[in-house]
Amino acid sequence: MKKKRVAVLGSTGSIGINTLDVISRYPDRFEVVLLTAFNNVQLLMQQVRQFRPAKVALSQVHLSSLKAEFKGRIKFFDVGKDLPDLVAEPSVDIVVLAMSGAAALDPFLSAVRAGKTVAPANKEALVMAGDIILAEARKSGAKIIPVDSEQSAIFQSLEGHRREDLKCVHLTASGGALLRLPKSQHGSLTVEDVLKHPRWKMGAKITVDSATLMNKGFEVIEAQRLFSLTVDQVKVVIHPEALIHSLVEYIDGSMIAQLSVTDMRIPIQYALTYPDRLCSGLNGIDLWKLKQLNFAVPDLRKFPSLALAFEVARIGGTAPAVLNAANEVAVEEFLAGRLGFLKIYTLVEQVVLLHKSVSQPSLKDIKEADAWARETAVRLLRKGK
Amino acid sequence: MKKKRVAVLGSTGSIGINTLDVISRYPDRFEVVLLTAFNNVQLLMQQVRQFRPAKVALSQVHLSSLKAEFKGRIKFFDVGKDLPDLVAEPSVDIVVLAMSGAAALDPFLSAVRAGKTVAPANKEALVMAGDIILAEARKSGAKIIPVDSEQSAIFQSLEGHRREDLKCVHLTASGGALLRLPKSQHGSLTVEDVLKHPRWKMGAKITVDSATLMNKGFEVIEAQRLFSLTVDQVKVVIHPEALIHSLVEYIDGSMIAQLSVTDMRIPIQYALTYPDRLCSGLNGIDLWKLKQLNFAVPDLRKFPSLALAFEVARIGGTAPAVLNAANEVAVEEFLAGRLGFLKIYTLVEQVVLLHKSVSQPSLKDIKEADAWARETAVRLLRKGK
Repeated sequence: MKKKRVAVLGSTGSIGINTLDVISRYPDRFEVVLLTAFNNVQLLMQQVRQFRPAKVALSQVHLSSLKAEFKGRIKFFDVGKDLPDLVAEPSVDIVVLAMSGAAALDPFLSAVRAGKTVAPANKEALVMAGDIILAEARKSGAKIIPVDSEQSAIFQSLEGHRREDLKCVHLTASGGALLRLPKSQHGSLTVEDVLKHPRWKMGAKITVDSATLMNKGFEVIEAQRLFSLTVDQVKVVIHPEALIHSLVEYIDGSMIAQLSVTDMRIPIQYALTYPDRLCSGLNGIDLWKLKQLNFAVPDLRKFPSLALAFEVARIGGTAPAVLNAANEVAVEEFLAGRLGFLKIYTLVEQVVLLHKSVSQPSLKDIKEADAWARETAVRLLRKGK
Repeated sequence: MKKKRVAVLGSTGSIGINTLDVISRYPDRFEVVLLTAFNNVQLLMQQVRQFRPAKVALSQVHLSSLKAEFKGRIKFFDVGKDLPDLVAEPSVDIVVLAMSGAAALDPFLSAVRAGKTVAPANKEALVMAGDIILAEARKSGAKIIPVDSEQSAIFQSLEGHRREDLKCVHLTASGGALLRLPKSQHGSLTVEDVLKHPRWKMGAKITVDSATLMNKGFEVIEAQRLFSLTVDQVKVVIHPEALIHSLVEYIDGSMIAQLSVTDMRIPIQYALTYPDRLCSGLNGIDLWKLKQLNFAVPDLRKFPSLALAFEVARIGGTAPAVLNAANEVAVEEFLAGRLGFLKIYTLVEQVVLLHKSVSQPSLKDIKEADAWARETAVRLLRKGK
């Protein structure tokens, strides 16, 4: 069997680490050809020693220390500018987009244009420019197999059923760290409070987005793009156990759902092995011990970010890119201790309200909207001080 | 579009009525070519007037009254002996096996041999001779699309996924009418008590089988046959809401489930329209209102019939036919008020223990075992009095 040659973009983050864990179980099936990271040089070097990729990209400032150790056996690149070229090379079969943020957009587009299979865990690129990415994928025949557990669940629940029979999708939301905390206490939340996610261990940015439910809002837009849905075809239901990862409802009233324990290695592995499955070493949910699954309607007054994301999804055009960019700035400020938790929403809403969305935007329009949103957010932050 | 020509065997029972309800929504898609019933002449005549099948079969004694009304426009047959020939005719595309009991075995086999699509709601035929039926289906290319909600859920959860990646299936069981009644009170249960099923409106026989969990035991054997599983690959979990109709667990730890409101028209319609789906007029489950799904391990001491069915599944051969036949006799006695509720199990167990199973049985072996079990049950009943 020919090995699948995998590029892992963002290999030192939570998804990247899990991706390499999956790959290490099946050395006869996968070959790591590219690892990339920004600043976690120590972990990256460990990974390079273990997986021996031919190519590595990281921040320019760290290049010299690594080059010394691997003297010519491995080629080093600048993560800030070389990723689009690297993912398009013939030596790559599948690109795991495990890096977060808008920086994933260019390599995503490049991989799709080159006809690669792309396994995106990154939400931002799809939120910003999902329509363009999907249009390019249709042109090149590139396959996009989502890694995000909710999108993977929808993908799996659509396999084997006719796309035209789909009525809507139901994204489940664990509800984040603040599900049961009264809104009156949200104002005084510290970074530490918010980073305690009850179900998933993830990076700081996405954990904050989970607490505000902005993450679920991004997933609404992402699902819209990935599966060509209208806003009204995407529903969100709170499901604190996070065991049903999402459901697809068909026109006959039947629903298909995907369930598993909350371990990212399952959707990662599915994306890597699709259409096959392999043993993951993880069992299914123990239904005899499970007792209960709970469901609730999301409280949009308590979590206005989700309502805002639905509104932005309805507007479309460059609005999702603005939502994402403003949110990146706001969450960064919050994580740095310079912005209160409730102010994340206020800032993002302000930027969105100031934006005039361009419909059917080009990539240039999207990048301009992204830059404008960041500048505007920073300007508003300065004014607020 | 060419209409699907449907034969409904047992059209006056619960499944038959629902099947005709589904068909009546899509007169441009389906044509009823055969209706059969035993004794409910009045309803059958109504159905014949509405759907105008070319052929009708019912008990010999009722034939004359119907022949008078429909004078030559419809051909009448004897339900006791003509079904195997009728279902095999070229005018039939799909056979809905909505009749209950062992009488379904011969028409099932005949339809399968003739390469028809068969939609079985009947459990007994598959329990008795599932291996033979499936082997014939493989030979002729006949498609079997189960109507039973649990088997339909498994069928739907397998579509689009590789059969070799299946780890096991989880049959959900509502737990029947007695789920919360202490075992100490089972002895004094009346027929009326037992016939109050909390979730599904069904015939009397199957409602009793649901109360003892023998019905779930039959489904274990049925699932084994339909999906070529070992006994250990079939699990049962109590799920009182009966909304998740069953789940398939894959080797990667992922589970796919099918859910819907408890309305038999959904799996019936799926079997009729497969691989397409059509609007059923029924919505998906309202997840915002659902609140909770509950799960529990089945209590085998309280419901020994399920344990017995697993044992019989393990023995295989003619044992399942014996289990089914003895149970038919016992439940009939119970429904007639001649046997206590707990004695259903005692009698069935006695017959099973007396049986010497024939492995890899022929159809003749199975029918002999069936007859032997019925005689033995009757003999034991007489002795008990």
